[in-house]
Amino acid sequence: MKTWAQALAGALLAAVLHPAWSATPEDGYELWLRYRALPAANQAALPRSVVHAQPASATLQAAVAELRRGVAGLGGRPLASASKPANGALVLATPANAPAGLSLPWADLGPEGYLLRSTRLQGRAVTVIAANSDIGLLYGSHAWLRAAQTGVDLGRLDARSSPRLSLRLLNHWDNLDRTVERGYAGASIWDWWKLPDIRDARYVDYARANASLGINGTVLNNVNAKADSLTAPFLAKAAALADVFRPHGIKVYLSARFSSPAELGGLKTSDPLDPAVRAWWKTKAAEIYKVIPDFGGFLVKANSEGQPGPQDYGRNHADGANMLAEALAPHGGVVLWRAFVYSPDASDRAAQGYAEFKPLDGKFAPNVIVQVKNGAIDFQPREPFHPLFGAMPATPLALELQITKEYLGFSTHLVYLGPMFEETLKADTRVKPQGATVAAQVTAMAGVANIGTDRNWSGSHFDQANWYAYGRMAWDHELAAGDVAREWVQQTFTVKPPAVDAIVAMMLASREAAVDYMTPLGLHHLMGTGHHHGPAPWVDNLERADWNPVYFHRAARDGIGFDRSPRGSNAVAQYAPELAQRFADPATTPENLLLWFHRLPWDHRMASGRTLWAELVSRYDRGVATVGDLRRRWAALQADIDPQRHAEVAAYLAVQEAEARWWRDACVAYFQAVSGLPLPAGVRPPERSLEEYKVLQFNFAPGRGG
Amino acid sequence: MKTWAQALAGALLAAVLHPAWSATPEDGYELWLRYRALPAANQAALPRSVVHAQPASATLQAAVAELRRGVAGLGGRPLASASKPANGALVLATPANAPAGLSLPWADLGPEGYLLRSTRLQGRAVTVIAANSDIGLLYGSHAWLRAAQTGVDLGRLDARSSPRLSLRLLNHWDNLDRTVERGYAGASIWDWWKLPDIRDARYVDYARANASLGINGTVLNNVNAKADSLTAPFLAKAAALADVFRPHGIKVYLSARFSSPAELGGLKTSDPLDPAVRAWWKTKAAEIYKVIPDFGGFLVKANSEGQPGPQDYGRNHADGANMLAEALAPHGGVVLWRAFVYSPDASDRAAQGYAEFKPLDGKFAPNVIVQVKNGAIDFQPREPFHPLFGAMPATPLALELQITKEYLGFSTHLVYLGPMFEETLKADTRVKPQGATVAAQVTAMAGVANIGTDRNWSGSHFDQANWYAYGRMAWDHELAAGDVAREWVQQTFTVKPPAVDAIVAMMLASREAAVDYMTPLGLHHLMGTGHHHGPAPWVDNLERADWNPVYFHRAARDGIGFDRSPRGSNAVAQYAPELAQRFADPATTPENLLLWFHRLPWDHRMASGRTLWAELVSRYDRGVATVGDLRRRWAALQADIDPQRHAEVAAYLAVQEAEARWWRDACVAYFQAVSGLPLPAGVRPPERSLEEYKVLQFNFAPGRGG
Repeated sequence: MKTWAQALAGALLAAVLHPAWSATPEDGYELWLRYRALPAANQAALPRSVVHAQPASATLQAAVAELRRGVAGLGGRPLASASKPANGALVLATPANAPAGLSLPWADLGPEGYLLRSTRLQGRAVTVIAANSDIGLLYGSHAWLRAAQTGVDLGRLDARSSPRLSLRLLNHWDNLDRTVERGYAGASIWDWWKLPDIRDARYVDYARANASLGINGTVLNNVNAKADSLTAPFLAKAAALADVFRPHGIKVYLSARFSSPAELGGLKTSDPLDPAVRAWWKTKAAEIYKVIPDFGGFLVKANSEGQPGPQDYGRNHADGANMLAEALAPHGGVVLWRAFVYSPDASDRAAQGYAEFKPLDGKFAPNVIVQVKNGAIDFQPREPFHPLFGAMPATPLALELQITKEYLGFSTHLVYLGPMFEETLKADTRVKPQGATVAAQVTAMAGVANIGTDRNWSGSHFDQANWYAYGRMAWDHELAAGDVAREWVQQTFTVKPPAVDAIVAMMLASREAAVDYMTPLGLHHLMGTGHHHGPAPWVDNLERADWNPVYFHRAARDGIGFDRSPRGSNAVAQYAPELAQRFADPATTPENLLLWFHRLPWDHRMASGRTLWAELVSRYDRGVATVGDLRRRWAALQADIDPQRHAEVAAYLAVQEAEARWWRDACVAYFQAVSGLPLPAGVRPPERSLEEYKVLQFNFAPGRGG
Repeated sequence: MKTWAQALAGALLAAVLHPAWSATPEDGYELWLRYRALPAANQAALPRSVVHAQPASATLQAAVAELRRGVAGLGGRPLASASKPANGALVLATPANAPAGLSLPWADLGPEGYLLRSTRLQGRAVTVIAANSDIGLLYGSHAWLRAAQTGVDLGRLDARSSPRLSLRLLNHWDNLDRTVERGYAGASIWDWWKLPDIRDARYVDYARANASLGINGTVLNNVNAKADSLTAPFLAKAAALADVFRPHGIKVYLSARFSSPAELGGLKTSDPLDPAVRAWWKTKAAEIYKVIPDFGGFLVKANSEGQPGPQDYGRNHADGANMLAEALAPHGGVVLWRAFVYSPDASDRAAQGYAEFKPLDGKFAPNVIVQVKNGAIDFQPREPFHPLFGAMPATPLALELQITKEYLGFSTHLVYLGPMFEETLKADTRVKPQGATVAAQVTAMAGVANIGTDRNWSGSHFDQANWYAYGRMAWDHELAAGDVAREWVQQTFTVKPPAVDAIVAMMLASREAAVDYMTPLGLHHLMGTGHHHGPAPWVDNLERADWNPVYFHRAARDGIGFDRSPRGSNAVAQYAPELAQRFADPATTPENLLLWFHRLPWDHRMASGRTLWAELVSRYDRGVATVGDLRRRWAALQADIDPQRHAEVAAYLAVQEAEARWWRDACVAYFQAVSGLPLPAGVRPPERSLEEYKVLQFNFAPGRGG
């Protein structure tokens, strides 16, 4: 295994030897929109002209500009705008300007969908990109470019796609001082201070990247919101961003602080049933829509972790959400009301969101969407899906996923989240006998962004894949994580099939590896206090019981796990009866969630035949071993990857392997101390003593916000 | 005048029309090391080979790599390494490997200087870059590349240069959480979290840029220091940066928190005369030098603005500095001990630094350097030089300049600081009858960096010039600000003579404009509380008297200004007698410092024949008018500048003009209210009422650190 210094030296040497690399080092800024030259043989198939409506809307101009940039990069000649189809032309068609002779299934495409088709038109061989709207044409143009970059035969296209959900959002937890809560990629890309006058060129590239995935809305500021974001100066700043994003089909949303009427308006209360409060929000909404006519709406974290909310005034979540909805409704805006709440009482935290929201089903205004995290605790490496999915038939729900890796190694660990997203989206809630996935229960998706000022946007090259996978799956939740990984690799790294296969395999192994070396078998929330970096299963001294890892794992001499069966907290009862029954019994609970639902003795017999204790240790070992594999596989790819990115990823993998060992060693040492059991035969003892792991401190860990 | 939106549209259009621009948009990342192709006629003069010692040291490798990169960019053929001079070769020579027949004035070059000479060697026409050390060769290589980029005839070179000061430092006020105190260019470029394992490619470019100027040391962390930076994990991170910088001749320094022995070592005291404390620092120094063998030393802010220091234990600054010096001396390190102190008593703040430090002259250990800000208050747009310069003959002094524009418009105003640096460096202290400049009193220079994660490094394109000017003048304080501006423009923007002339003229006008629209005639510290953004001359309610603008301007119905004459605080007595006498009398005080030294009636007659009040208003108006000129001159350069940077600078200038008007209007409104005087005839009234200016708030202004 090379050291980092050796890898760097190699990269520098390669850069010197290959001036082509050094002239334009791959720093990751271009994301998956790299448009590198196709093999010469494939370049002949590139179009030479593009037919589109004239004059073109801003969105259509964005589509044509992207095609022009892409075709130039792929090795084609400059793409000329034409009024009539020539051989090899790209034809951008909507019903309003469809060339004669073009018969297409317009109705099936919906307002945002697109169709790509190789066909003959007026005697010419052309490629049609068709949609009912210009934004559909922009999505179709990005899809065509994706096809071109992933080696699809451009002469035999016949594909169509429409988004399954109408709202596909990013949530930025970005503060107004440019710190980012749970951000591991530098500072916020929103330079609030310089806005609205100074519009960083990066904002356009942000919009391009999101449009290429079909993301159509972005919440600019942290859910732990400051009221300032609703003042006139900050609305002007948000409006400037909305202007930049609009051609790319991306609407701006804001996190709203519930106490704004009191804080900004000088009112005595922010009680949602107070007429003056309601009037204040209506006036504020009108003010917002004056500067952002297509403003998307508010995201609200209320009565959660110290945030103000309607319960401060004896009202409930529906009262609060409906008041905001009433203010936004005349303008077409929505309220995304988060269900991430937990009370400080001693009951099972996993059961509290359901307990507060389930009774409100049907009580929300039509333009309220209740936004539910994928799991009931908090973005753990693995959680069962949140029991609210399927339990709110009369309420539109949004699924909130975390793209930024708060609990999954920050931006230094290679953990491809596609399989995790897929696991939730395709989880069967069993609320219908014929099956009903989580994805089928939601009308919107929200992803907590992993974007920052780092040149590579996401803090590491592979973390770009999580942004990509989120966007693609928000558009089409039927996509398989492996297929998404494959097209991302082809666009981002290389199209050479063996290298693509190798990298996809690495990505697909990575999430289970993280589960294994952090929290195997359904364990959860063993992370360090506050920053959530690294292992701290021993922590038992925090103010609230359910902030302590010991609350979640409940390990002692007699066993380990959280009993959520009917013998315990009975949180399983929040699931559909079929699942509730399955999760109530260790024998029918999936092993990867075993200790989530059950507290079991250390000698509980596992499917492998091992005891629970031996199985736990073996999972930790497997996680570490897999990361070692990732390093070796990546090292073997040196010839296939540009030197800078190869060296950078190699350095990150070295960190990940060291930290995977640390996780494994610290957890094994701790659980061994608690259980009093000897290490299973042949197992490597932890490198250090438990005390040495306990004293580690990380005072300046990133992501804790302002 | 174009609006920003029009300018942006123009830039985008230009980018579409000129694919060359859009392929590699100029985003400012390359700084002055752009190496764009020379005119074809000049490319013939580029070398084809480089003769250098083999094997090459890391520093010599850096020099050759830079030459290779530069020559390739300038349009030359790949530069081959050769063992014997061919025609047109570059010959990198030190005494140890000088080719036969080369006779050079080695002794005159000193340890870091270089010589560039076109000559014949062994019958071949070559260019010699000579130095006594490899670092001298690196500096010489950068000088040769600067000559090439600025149109010097490469066939007739005969130049040599040696630094006038041995320590040429940057001071980063960067916190360990990546916020930057007084930083306006994004976050800290030091990604402490990922160090030491992950070394951002940007660190190398940082080192290249600094080496190109001759900067040879960098203090990594804020003078308001955390003790954590001296713990083993952070020392390992600093060591990783030192490894990256070492080939480029840049040593790493750290700001040290004086109370570290108590905070980190668990000692009961940090008293500098306590043997255990002294032992702790010696052990710490040994620990540091073990991982950073060429560690530069400590920078210390002690007993200043709440920082701990020797006075906490009844000791003085010399006691504190000498204890640290004793710990560093065996390893060759230095202590930079800051003289920026002021007590909370009611005396003249401008006089306090001198009062505390002057009595200690001669009391410091030989490896202590007292670091003094250019002026006695705090980096104001204009201050007289600090009276400590010339007053500490037995103590080595460092001049601390602020490159980041805390009081000069952050990174949104175009203010070229070269003239300000020059004004201080060349100020005559009159401590010797034949003249003695400030520059002649110092052995080191320190510049508070304006570097951050923004792609253009400094927050705006023109702020790069302030980094550049600082570095060039730290190497050679005899340089003229105009000449430095010219070479910066040629390397950064264009070599077209009319455009160069126009931009240099803009730069040279800009600092006086800022003085005019902010604090003309010797006014100072009128800026907003805490963040120092914008005008707030009315502030009078801060805890300490000398935090209030009213303390500094003392405007009332009967006059304005701070009386530092013998009739007032008598701070003038801290200057050499000749200057003290000159500054004691308004008639002999330079008008641009008049209100610094004197409190005068509003009808005081000025050189222009105007009253002081009319002159004050006319200076404010002149400042605003000059910024209007800058905008018009820049707009006229559209054809000469690449579209992205042209549009960006235009947007910044629009902000600057609006803020210059704000400054002018708010100050005129305030001083009019205080003086009770009518506006002079023909003068435009302020746009808004004084109350409207007073209520403005800037809650999330950048630069306030963590």
